[in-house]
Parts: sequence; C-alpha cells; structure tokens
Amino acid sequence: MTEALASWRDGDTKRAILEFVRTVVAEVPVEERVAVFDNDGTLWCEKPMPIQLDFILRRLTAMAEADPALRGRQPWQAAYEQDHAWLAGVLTEHYAGDDRDVRVLAAGVLAAYDGISVEEFEEQSERFLRETKHPTLGREYLRCTYAPMVDLLDLLAGNGFTTYIASGGGRDFMRPISREVYGIPRERVIGSAVALEYRPDERGGTIIHRAEADYLDDGPQKPIRIWSRAGRRPLLAAGNSNGDLAMLHFAQRPGKPSLRLLVKHDDAEREFDYVAGSEQALAEADRRGWTVVSIRDDWVAVF
Amino acid sequence: MTEALASWRDGDTKRAILEFVRTVVAEVPVEERVAVFDNDGTLWCEKPMPIQLDFILRRLTAMAEADPALRGRQPWQAAYEQDHAWLAGVLTEHYAGDDRDVRVLAAGVLAAYDGISVEEFEEQSERFLRETKHPTLGREYLRCTYAPMVDLLDLLAGNGFTTYIASGGGRDFMRPISREVYGIPRERVIGSAVALEYRPDERGGTIIHRAEADYLDDGPQKPIRIWSRAGRRPLLAAGNSNGDLAMLHFAQRPGKPSLRLLVKHDDAEREFDYVAGSEQALAEADRRGWTVVSIRDDWVAVF
Repeated sequence: MTEALASWRDGDTKRAILEFVRTVVAEVPVEERVAVFDNDGTLWCEKPMPIQLDFILRRLTAMAEADPALRGRQPWQAAYEQDHAWLAGVLTEHYAGDDRDVRVLAAGVLAAYDGISVEEFEEQSERFLRETKHPTLGREYLRCTYAPMVDLLDLLAGNGFTTYIASGGGRDFMRPISREVYGIPRERVIGSAVALEYRPDERGGTIIHRAEADYLDDGPQKPIRIWSRAGRRPLLAAGNSNGDLAMLHFAQRPGKPSLRLLVKHDDAEREFDYVAGSEQALAEADRRGWTVVSIRDDWVAVF
Repeated sequence: MTEALASWRDGDTKRAILEFVRTVVAEVPVEERVAVFDNDGTLWCEKPMPIQLDFILRRLTAMAEADPALRGRQPWQAAYEQDHAWLAGVLTEHYAGDDRDVRVLAAGVLAAYDGISVEEFEEQSERFLRETKHPTLGREYLRCTYAPMVDLLDLLAGNGFTTYIASGGGRDFMRPISREVYGIPRERVIGSAVALEYRPDERGGTIIHRAEADYLDDGPQKPIRIWSRAGRRPLLAAGNSNGDLAMLHFAQRPGKPSLRLLVKHDDAEREFDYVAGSEQALAEADRRGWTVVSIRDDWVAVF
C-alpha cells in the first residue's frame, strides 16, 4: 500500500483510512469486507443540481416542447422555462419539512420515463452521461467523479473489499457507467428504483418502467436495501448528507473494525461549499467521532 | 472440461449443456455470462412439501402450542393438527385458480416471523436446515440438493459464469447455506422477501421483518428481480415449474447463445414423480425446443 491514496494529503483522515484497511486485512475474512458508498456528493459532484436531475429536466423539457399543454403544469413548466428558482424552492421547502412540491416534482420525474424499456432507458442515460458537460465546472459529467474517492475504491478493491454504490439516485441511471468510472460492476449498484413490469413477447419479454416508485433508496431505506442486496452489514460506509445517516450508523459489527466517512463540501474554489442537507450528518459525525473528509484539506486534487 | 458433469449420463441433455458452455466461453465476455437457477425442485427437493414450508409450519405449531386461541385459526390449526390435507388443498385450489386459502396461508406465513431481526431469522433458518431431516428420503435437508445440478453450477463457475439463485422461496431463508451447498454467495441469492423496517439503536440499527410481503419472486416477477439484481439478461435459466416460465423466456439475448433447462420430476424410485404445477412449462419446453432434464434418464445419481 506504499503508493495508496496518492490523491489524498497526508494527515489524520488518510491515516485513519489506511489504518482501517490494514486492520480489516489482518482480521476480517475477504467475504465480509463490504464497503458502501453514496454517489451524489460522495463519489461525484451534486451541485448545482444532481446530475440525474439535469437528465430528467431535459426530458421534461422535450415533453413540453412536444406537448404545449404541459407547459403550464409543474414540473414541466419549470423545466421548459428553466425556472431554477422553482426547483431550488422545492429543495428548500423539503429541508423545512414541506414535501408538497417534492411530490409534484416526483410525479413528473416518474412520468418522464413511463413505459420505456430498461434497455432503452440505459441507452439514454449512458448517451446523456457521455455527451453532457457540467454546467459550471467546464468538464464532462463523467469527469466529475472525485479522484480521491476513486483512489479509495481502488485501494479497497485491491484489498479484497466488495464495494457497492448505495445511492439515492436511480440504480439504472448509474449502471451503464459504474464499472468504467468507479470499477464497480452493474450488479453492485444499489439505488432508487421505479416499479417495473414484465411484458411477454417473442424476444424473451420486455421489462418496462411504470410511473410509480418501487422505493427511494434514502435515509432508513439505505440499510434495508444494502441488506437486501449484499446480505451483510458493511464495515465501511461513505456519505455526505443527512440521507446517509442510517447507512453510516449501520456500518458496524460487534468486534469488527469499522469506518464511517462523511465528505464535507468546503472547497468553493475547486468544487462547492455548502452544508444544506448535511447539518445533522455533520453534527452526528462530530458526536460519534466519525471521519470527516474535508475536500479543501484532505484532497490533493478533487477531479 | 474432460471430467465435467460426471453425475450426468451421456446423451442429448449433457451434450446440449457442454456445447452451450463451449460456445459461451468462445463468444461471450466473462461479465455477460449470467446464469439463473430456481431453487425448489430445480436445485433441491421440493416434495412432499417445500423445505421452507416445513420450517414455517414448525414455527406456526410452536405459536399454537404457546397460544391456544390460534389452534382454531388457519393456518395455525393445520400446522398444529398436522393437517396435510388442508395444506395440500390450498395448493390444489391454487392450481385451479382459487387463491382464497393461499391468502390465508400467506397471512400466517408472514405473521410467523413478524418483528424478528434479519440476523435472528438467519440463525433460525440455518439451525433448522442443519438439524432437520427430510421426512421421507431419510437424509438431512442440506443433503437434498441435486448432485448433478451442483456439478452444473461448478462447471459454470469454472467457466466464468456468475450464477444466481432466482427462487420463489425466501431470499433470507437460503442465504446462510447457499455458498456451502451451491457455491453461490449470499449476495447472489434472489428470492422472495418480506417488507423490512430499519429501527435505529446503539448497535448500528436493527432490520426487522414486517408481516407483509415485499414481493413474491415468482412468474413475471422473476425477470424483474433478476434485472433489478444482476442488471443483465441471463444466458442460461433453469427451472422446473410454471412459475419459472417468464424467467426461462427472459434468458435470451439477440445473437448470443442461450440455454433453457427444465427439470422434469419423473423418477419415483430415486426422488419423486409429479407434473402438477409444471404442465404449462413442459408444454412450452416442448413447443420451443427447450432442454428438458429427465431426472430418471439424465442423472447418474440424484443426490
């Protein structure tokens, strides 16, 4: 591990990670070395808006272009008029405990891909991710992954860990690119999912999206979905927001080493500087002695 | 592959399997070599009743022993009185399209482990599977796996396939023993699941069973759950009943080799001889030219 974590600055955080990996390798059988990572804001950039939201807004815009009646209805109206204030307001209200507009937005999000096959959806998300640039960072979305976190994923994989993405974002949205950008194969992507329907046909049947959620992989759903997929409690969990709190707590087993990483966005120069949506997580990390990763102080490079 | 499938008799079936594996190895990248297996009646014995039903009936009996009021209510009454006729009737009605008693049985099944933690449930299912004998075959349940199917799983694993269990039975019921008996690790067990709930506590939270189904992994749900877990269409699917039909159809991709195996229970001497619940699957296999595995003719040994 001499050259491990080259993109991390020497210091307490890097030392804590390397020490954790050494202990796990010495004490824990390979099959129990499970690590889970949130995606948005933990493995790649989530500002000014989650990458998947950009993908969905473009689809809502195209729907409104095709059907004028949609232009007076939210969230199509906001997408069509590029009304970022409405979208930001939804999030602000959500943090304040008012989810009425979240439900309006969610209904639009679910309607956006109603009836599409899973294969077709993946083609569209892959094309978007390969062809679209981040609105302010001046780099392609696929190059908005955090180099130090990819280094960490590599270090873990090289030490017998099985890594999973446990994202609030869409499972099938990330799958086409997860191996290429993170080294995590599609079967180890856990994320939110829409309800699916199987329709028999002469090509072996087609699985299509329905306009309803199967589950939102956030908050207390994260441990449930990790258990359902991996069948194990993780030893390492990394997140950046309040929605990751349950997953961070869940990453512990009696008598085994554990590591909880909370990525703190405090670098306005190289990335973004924000705490909204992470207040409880940061307070809990402080109370519990979890490892806070400062983008400004701990990372040699961000991308 | 010279000694592959030693427990299979030479003949068309064995030849078809070996030819399929050879073609896949020559033509398909490793990450796309996905194979899915039903469990009850495909990998292990499901008569006189599914092994998990025995597990659940014992629990219902214990509940009725502790609470006399339950003894007059189905399905506790049938469990307590060992009324196999009632249980068989449920299945007969189900095949005839009447699911009223299936719902009564399902409600009891779901109530049986209401509130138990996932870890505790696994301890109980593992203990049961290790300590219980099959009622008529005179062998432990863990030795009721079909040796030729385990041979096949080994052959596939040795040729770069990723194998999954896609069972109508409970995912968490099979997980504690899947690696030991099939070489399939717990994260590759797909099966039915109850709804789970995460309860925070000082031990990293506890995930508990709720008395409602999350989904029943049968029929058209099988392709959906395979996609959700593996993110790929399989090249090989093996089943034995009508509930496997959608999964068998789903195992095909344009321009890629595929193999559909249907295990036929036609060996009253060494195992069981029955077709109830498999009629449509056998007819479809005949119509489509799928590979029917005759236990009597194709297997040197069953267990």
